[in-house]
Amino acid sequence: MNELLIVGSVALDSVKTPFGNVKEALGGSATYASYAASFFTPVRLVGVVGDDFPVEHVELLKSRRIDIGGLQTARGKTFRWSGAYEYDLNEAHTLATELNVFETFKPHIPSAYKKSDFVFLANIDPDLQLSVLDQVDKPKLVACDTMNLWIRLKPEALKRVIKRVDFLFINEGEARLFAGMSSLIKAGRLLQSWGPKFVVIKKGEHGALLFGDKTLFAAPAFPLEDVYDPTGAGDTFAGGFVGYLANSGGDISDANLRRAVVYGSAMASFTVEKFSLERLKTLSVGQLTERVRLLKELSHFDHP
Amino acid sequence: MNELLIVGSVALDSVKTPFGNVKEALGGSATYASYAASFFTPVRLVGVVGDDFPVEHVELLKSRRIDIGGLQTARGKTFRWSGAYEYDLNEAHTLATELNVFETFKPHIPSAYKKSDFVFLANIDPDLQLSVLDQVDKPKLVACDTMNLWIRLKPEALKRVIKRVDFLFINEGEARLFAGMSSLIKAGRLLQSWGPKFVVIKKGEHGALLFGDKTLFAAPAFPLEDVYDPTGAGDTFAGGFVGYLANSGGDISDANLRRAVVYGSAMASFTVEKFSLERLKTLSVGQLTERVRLLKELSHFDHP
Repeated sequence: MNELLIVGSVALDSVKTPFGNVKEALGGSATYASYAASFFTPVRLVGVVGDDFPVEHVELLKSRRIDIGGLQTARGKTFRWSGAYEYDLNEAHTLATELNVFETFKPHIPSAYKKSDFVFLANIDPDLQLSVLDQVDKPKLVACDTMNLWIRLKPEALKRVIKRVDFLFINEGEARLFAGMSSLIKAGRLLQSWGPKFVVIKKGEHGALLFGDKTLFAAPAFPLEDVYDPTGAGDTFAGGFVGYLANSGGDISDANLRRAVVYGSAMASFTVEKFSLERLKTLSVGQLTERVRLLKELSHFDHP
Repeated sequence: MNELLIVGSVALDSVKTPFGNVKEALGGSATYASYAASFFTPVRLVGVVGDDFPVEHVELLKSRRIDIGGLQTARGKTFRWSGAYEYDLNEAHTLATELNVFETFKPHIPSAYKKSDFVFLANIDPDLQLSVLDQVDKPKLVACDTMNLWIRLKPEALKRVIKRVDFLFINEGEARLFAGMSSLIKAGRLLQSWGPKFVVIKKGEHGALLFGDKTLFAAPAFPLEDVYDPTGAGDTFAGGFVGYLANSGGDISDANLRRAVVYGSAMASFTVEKFSLERLKTLSVGQLTERVRLLKELSHFDHP
């Protein structure tokens, strides 16, 4: 019973980076997370698209044996996001957000999904994340992601979400913003005190930090010479992480959590090599495992 | 023959951070580096102070058995730097620099020091670093540090320096500035192609990266809840690193280099816990070793 329920956005992204641009390419937090998790465990996807959503994107998800029984098609246009990255690629500048069918989206969890042992609330409105938590039936492990928009607009709803999850994923700048302090270590500890058993701070090119009561783990990022498009890296990381845990039956031993971070990190390093899901589409398990091995080599040291 | 010659600045620093301030406290690149290196190997210090330099600072260096036979006392005032750090503590804002006796300083390497097997050119004017290289007699290993000021003012002299060293220490922003590119991995490789066998990029709270022909190592930083004063962290890191290598007879095997990075990183994590050299003054070898062990625990993972 390693089924992982993922709820979040499915989008058409237009992205400009110093290396080029794409228009209306497949994107969305639930898309990246599901695709990444599908390497490890069976995924059930809940989200919404409009009647303009290209059928090849649905086929792509199906090709990974992602269960799309919970992907609603609503009248209207699919959610669209457009953004640009500057030279340093660290922060996305949102150029336009068209909510479209997302404006009236209410996640409906099909009854067959309610007993999912693993639940990942990918980045969406925290009120929608709460409504998902109200519908599922005692999952073994719940994780959530979020973004600066919700920290600014709906901090109280977001706090209610993270009180109910086992894992919070959040990026470096957002952790500082949410906790209201510059020390990342203190911020991680504070966020953990608000409810989650574990907090995972995503630091992009600097790797990730995992905070738990008895755990503090610093994982390196894979040293890429160029990041073509950072879009979806965080979603991929979280999806890979939770998928890895689901596949191991929710083993939250220190050793297994560290491996989950590293697999998530390795997975995300592929996403940013091309636009949209282009690189993930051709990713093999062998390539992923090799990158995990390289991450070990990168960070290993012995001392007497 | 593990003697390490260190040439750089000896200063009186006035520093303001969100946690407080100090006035005319002991500082300088050669001071921090020598103090750190003295935990590992015999140090020979070359620098200059004015006739106002407090005798207790000289006594402090002597107490670490640092050979100060090359520390000139010139007529006039000691070099003074004052700076402030904002909330994020990542970048120093220089408020004032009074060169004083440094203005006419010419490093004179005492003849007894010329045959030092290990040489560290701490951060000073690259023309002075070159004059040191012209005076020493075939050292086994030479390392240098620098700063953004020299990259902007004297890039050509600095390039001549790094062509002649085995190790270049440089921080993240400076590496990007000097290489003229945003990718840190590419920047590290480019700087290495300009001469040094190894480039070490210091990333503050994100650790350090070591680049060599057959080596790429990512070391974590020790996860401090608060950084009281980052001044001297980079000098301490480099001094600890080179001191560690000198003590191991210049063993530049991959395994030993990685240990040198980690010892440098651990050493620097103490410097920033208090102002000036206050924390280093009470540091024991046991505390240092324990922090190295914790860095191992922090970054370790196993994978099947």
